[in-house]
Amino acid sequence: MSQQITLYTAKICPYAHRAEIALAEAKVEYTRFEIDLRNKPDWYVPKVNPVGKVPAIAYGGPTVPADQPSPESTKLVESLVLVEFIADLFPESGILPKDPVLRAKARLFVDAVSNKVSPAQAAVLIRGEDPEQLVQAYEAVQALLPPQGFAIGEFSAADIAIAPFLARIELNLANDLGGFPADQGEGPKILELLRAPKLARLQQYFKDIQARPSFATTFDKEHVLASSKRRFAELRAKKYGA
Amino acid sequence: MSQQITLYTAKICPYAHRAEIALAEAKVEYTRFEIDLRNKPDWYVPKVNPVGKVPAIAYGGPTVPADQPSPESTKLVESLVLVEFIADLFPESGILPKDPVLRAKARLFVDAVSNKVSPAQAAVLIRGEDPEQLVQAYEAVQALLPPQGFAIGEFSAADIAIAPFLARIELNLANDLGGFPADQGEGPKILELLRAPKLARLQQYFKDIQARPSFATTFDKEHVLASSKRRFAELRAKKYGA
Ligand SMILES: N[C@@H](CCC(=O)N[C@@H](CS)C(=O)NCC(=O)O)C(=O)O
Ligand SMILES: N[C@@H](CCC(=O)N[C@@H](CS)C(=O)NCC(=O)O)C(=O)O
Repeated sequence: MSQQITLYTAKICPYAHRAEIALAEAKVEYTRFEIDLRNKPDWYVPKVNPVGKVPAIAYGGPTVPADQPSPESTKLVESLVLVEFIADLFPESGILPKDPVLRAKARLFVDAVSNKVSPAQAAVLIRGEDPEQLVQAYEAVQALLPPQGFAIGEFSAADIAIAPFLARIELNLANDLGGFPADQGEGPKILELLRAPKLARLQQYFKDIQARPSFATTFDKEHVLASSKRRFAELRAKKYGA
Repeated sequence: MSQQITLYTAKICPYAHRAEIALAEAKVEYTRFEIDLRNKPDWYVPKVNPVGKVPAIAYGGPTVPADQPSPESTKLVESLVLVEFIADLFPESGILPKDPVLRAKARLFVDAVSNKVSPAQAAVLIRGEDPEQLVQAYEAVQALLPPQGFAIGEFSAADIAIAPFLARIELNLANDLGGFPADQGEGPKILELLRAPKLARLQQYFKDIQARPSFATTFDKEHVLASSKRRFAELRAKKYGA
């Protein structure tokens, strides 16, 4: 039996989204607390996460309201650590299978997401660098996929690591949001590159992810889009002037 | 029962050293194959690791000489993935304990090593940047240590992640090797900073690591020092002229 789980999260955040998908896969009851990243509650840094980021989990301890965290619960952070933690608490979830080789393959895929997809997303979507980086990152992870199905066959920590990023890249580009000038069709143009025939396998994979209930029920597209619009409006005002 | 394990490794490499410590902790028989990183065998990239790095493991498959790897064995790479793999194959090794919270704490420590110690080491020892970065990285990991013992109490994947880096930083600095000019006492001076009273807990921790048989039997100080001398002589020739 696991103890109480309180997740401090934010719908906009791809890292936090990983923890939400993992908890949905584990089909576990937990307390969800949305942190407004633009206006964090005073108690969050001193009582939950000293570095002030989401996601974080308060595990165990006495029953308390989420906005009055107890010093007696264990505080855990870092999205990938949390996904492994949820996999360890709920082995029957299959988030990580039993077979050591398959577990290693899932972790190698996660490593490629951390070292290729996330940096390329930041470079292209935030700093407005050459979209070719993103195409190459997509090709690199696509090369790790089997001919069909999820990254290691069954849905796992590998898919949890990449899903929030694929979803946000697609949503932002489709809505022309990114670290490039607005209203010049740059977003949709980059999206076309990512939908090229040479990336067909990854596109199919992303469709499979979108059909997964743990993803579908944890991705609030309208909310993420609205927050993204605000965020990129600010970023563009800074970069290109208001 | 696990299958055959062949480790492709190099004594100089801190990442490869992690896999060697983990295998020593698991007390498992394996085939050790030293890769000369300055003159890699032709078959290494096509048959073992497409990116040409150590460490790599060939797991299972038929019995073959290590320099004739079989396509039937599973090839795994990335030091941290290999440590988790060895922990999964040999749970009784305690490389990762059973308790999900302790496992998460070990992984958080590993995360701090990856995101603080390794980058600071590269910045200071290779690029010759401000040693203060290294002091700060040491303080950050020291803050994660309990008052005594290893990172999560018993020896674990956390200690395996950091040990090879602490050892190489110390050895290089003590021998005045680094990305700074030679013969000006710069190395020992940086080492003094790392031995300051405010880092006493980390120094004690490093002593405990050095006394651990899995570390002691896998760190060939003379070999690493000789290779380091060659490597830094080259680096300095490039940087400061011959
Ligand atoms: N490496 C962390 C990254 C988490 C992160 O960057 N979260 C962002 C939102 S996406 C955050 O909380 N930022 C708030 C802040 O830095 O103040 C993880 O994987 O959990
Ligand atoms: N992220 C890798 C890094 C491994 C690595 O950088 N190995 C170096 C030696 S320390 C290497 O094999 N370099 C050879 C090369 O790049 O040609 C890991 O953790 O295993």
